[in-house]
Amino acid sequence: MNQYTDRIVQAQERMHAEGVAAMLLAPTEQMRYLIGWRTEAHERLLALFLPMEGQPTLITPSLNAAQARTNPAGITSILEWRDSPGWMEVVASLLKEWRINGRTFAIDDQLPACHLLAIQHMAPYARYISAGDIMNAMRAEKSEEELHILSQSAAITDAVYQESLNHLKAGMTELDLQEIITHLYGKHGVKPAFCIVCFGKNSAEPHHEPDETPLHQGDIVLMDIGCMYQGYGSDITRMVSFGESNDERRDMYRLVRQAHQAAFDIVKPGLACEEVDTAARRVIENAGLGDHFFHRTGHGIGLSVHEMPYMVEGNKQKLKVGMCFSIEPGVYFDGRWGIRIENIVAVGEEGGRYLNAIPPEELLFSHS
Amino acid sequence: MNQYTDRIVQAQERMHAEGVAAMLLAPTEQMRYLIGWRTEAHERLLALFLPMEGQPTLITPSLNAAQARTNPAGITSILEWRDSPGWMEVVASLLKEWRINGRTFAIDDQLPACHLLAIQHMAPYARYISAGDIMNAMRAEKSEEELHILSQSAAITDAVYQESLNHLKAGMTELDLQEIITHLYGKHGVKPAFCIVCFGKNSAEPHHEPDETPLHQGDIVLMDIGCMYQGYGSDITRMVSFGESNDERRDMYRLVRQAHQAAFDIVKPGLACEEVDTAARRVIENAGLGDHFFHRTGHGIGLSVHEMPYMVEGNKQKLKVGMCFSIEPGVYFDGRWGIRIENIVAVGEEGGRYLNAIPPEELLFSHS
Repeated sequence: MNQYTDRIVQAQERMHAEGVAAMLLAPTEQMRYLIGWRTEAHERLLALFLPMEGQPTLITPSLNAAQARTNPAGITSILEWRDSPGWMEVVASLLKEWRINGRTFAIDDQLPACHLLAIQHMAPYARYISAGDIMNAMRAEKSEEELHILSQSAAITDAVYQESLNHLKAGMTELDLQEIITHLYGKHGVKPAFCIVCFGKNSAEPHHEPDETPLHQGDIVLMDIGCMYQGYGSDITRMVSFGESNDERRDMYRLVRQAHQAAFDIVKPGLACEEVDTAARRVIENAGLGDHFFHRTGHGIGLSVHEMPYMVEGNKQKLKVGMCFSIEPGVYFDGRWGIRIENIVAVGEEGGRYLNAIPPEELLFSHS
Repeated sequence: MNQYTDRIVQAQERMHAEGVAAMLLAPTEQMRYLIGWRTEAHERLLALFLPMEGQPTLITPSLNAAQARTNPAGITSILEWRDSPGWMEVVASLLKEWRINGRTFAIDDQLPACHLLAIQHMAPYARYISAGDIMNAMRAEKSEEELHILSQSAAITDAVYQESLNHLKAGMTELDLQEIITHLYGKHGVKPAFCIVCFGKNSAEPHHEPDETPLHQGDIVLMDIGCMYQGYGSDITRMVSFGESNDERRDMYRLVRQAHQAAFDIVKPGLACEEVDTAARRVIENAGLGDHFFHRTGHGIGLSVHEMPYMVEGNKQKLKVGMCFSIEPGVYFDGRWGIRIENIVAVGEEGGRYLNAIPPEELLFSHS
């Protein structure tokens, strides 16, 4: 039994406990976690059908059938369909065979709505629920091997950030820096999973898309970057001042750094996720800047860059050993600048530990 | 009134004709087509809510609100939500305000299932249908300006293919060639949208993912590549023999080339899409190789690389002037090799015209 057949059994045990008759997974990270394989099928339906008991079935376009047969979980029940007549008949007979109507059917969170609508049309009396709860709970607790790979992914991103600082120069654009970061990741043998670069006032937009904005003396340079390494993500946010900064920004950086520290210090098994958020938020609210911190404090990371658990108000989920997530408080002043400090933290028996380097205590500056 | 406000009005007219009370679009190409803007919101709900009459509303995470306000359609009704308490309340009150329960609600084909399931929970008595029919019919008929951009996108991909041939050498891997193609696209100022490179027997897998397979004398080199240029896609499949080939492969190439030609020749306004498929398929079936051509003949292309209309058996949709799609018959011999020839065709008053260069009549070979 390899790790994938093991995970399939675990999933079925959870389905049994929750009264879920079957689960349908799209070719997402959920499928990759469970069977070690996925592929992009675009608008064509490719899905894993997992009954509560018995063998799973892969439903695949003929185009992907040869690849599907290589799945590391060793699934041999593979239903192929061709563009004509399409996937509907194959799925309809599968749903009938497993008597889905009237029972609970868990659906991959990322299955496209058009596929779900078609399936609901075929089995209108099933009770449709999200497969997220079952899958995400499994994925959230990382094994030692997964933590090791996540640390390596984090180390690459830390290195790329440090290396990128050598390339800052006045007049370069955000897109120039993005290209340099892509190149630096390439030297480490990986591709960026995402690469947000903000100069100056663009740092006030947490999800800014890099553009032709040039770098000016005195600008804040914010980088929110990450990669996938052996299938596992990394994600940090760091910033420097390009040339000397001023007291206002330095103070604001210290405030966000304190918020980050407060969240990090509180991490331990058994704590509710929302408490991590509250710890960071309280520091910023106490400075009268609560309105300028308008996003959650963190997200889980693993096969996906964003996954459960989320560090957000209202999330009562308890931290467990092996969970891995970002801590990333920020403050943003629209049209002016923003500060965010993000590191990945793993939950250990005794508390949190960083997978990334410790974020600087002060707003550093780069010589312009 | 700009082109986007114009498109919104057109969409509402179609909704009226179809009895669709409201439409919800995810941040997909559908949204970009209708309002000129979209952004990646990952697991956070970002959506355009378009009622049959009246102004559309953008529902956006606070994080993306600043960007959302820049939408070229000039939509000013923007509902922001924060990670806590989340998007549910905002959407629930919008659905209530527009009295969605009991009426027809069209949903973006790509909306993630978890969002659809949550919305169905809020408005269980609405009739949910795919928004695809309305949106895809609008998008399928390209304007002159769109055709111009698609031609430029096609020209870049043609050039990159030609340039890539200069880089073939024995022992290079598929991944090496993929990197070269990415670099060549970069010189044209664009990124590849996808890049399938197959050496030798890998050409028998239509959706092969490039790997460390090395290039050997006598291998078929198949490239299925495309880019996005000014938001519009290109997509061709070409192949050469690396060094001299043999009669079997040359004959097979000619057969696929004839199938391609047969499909191209039949294109004209008013023809059913499935007839394009049949024209190509008949040539291959007549050679006794029908089982080796196991995918549809083509797909539409525009803001997405794959979109309506599909050239597939059973699709009675009529070709119209301005439609743009691939013609890509292929034959595949599992474990040995495969042949596919793909060009993009636009429907004109008089028939089809290629946006790409005419595919070679014979299987060319590159000196090894």
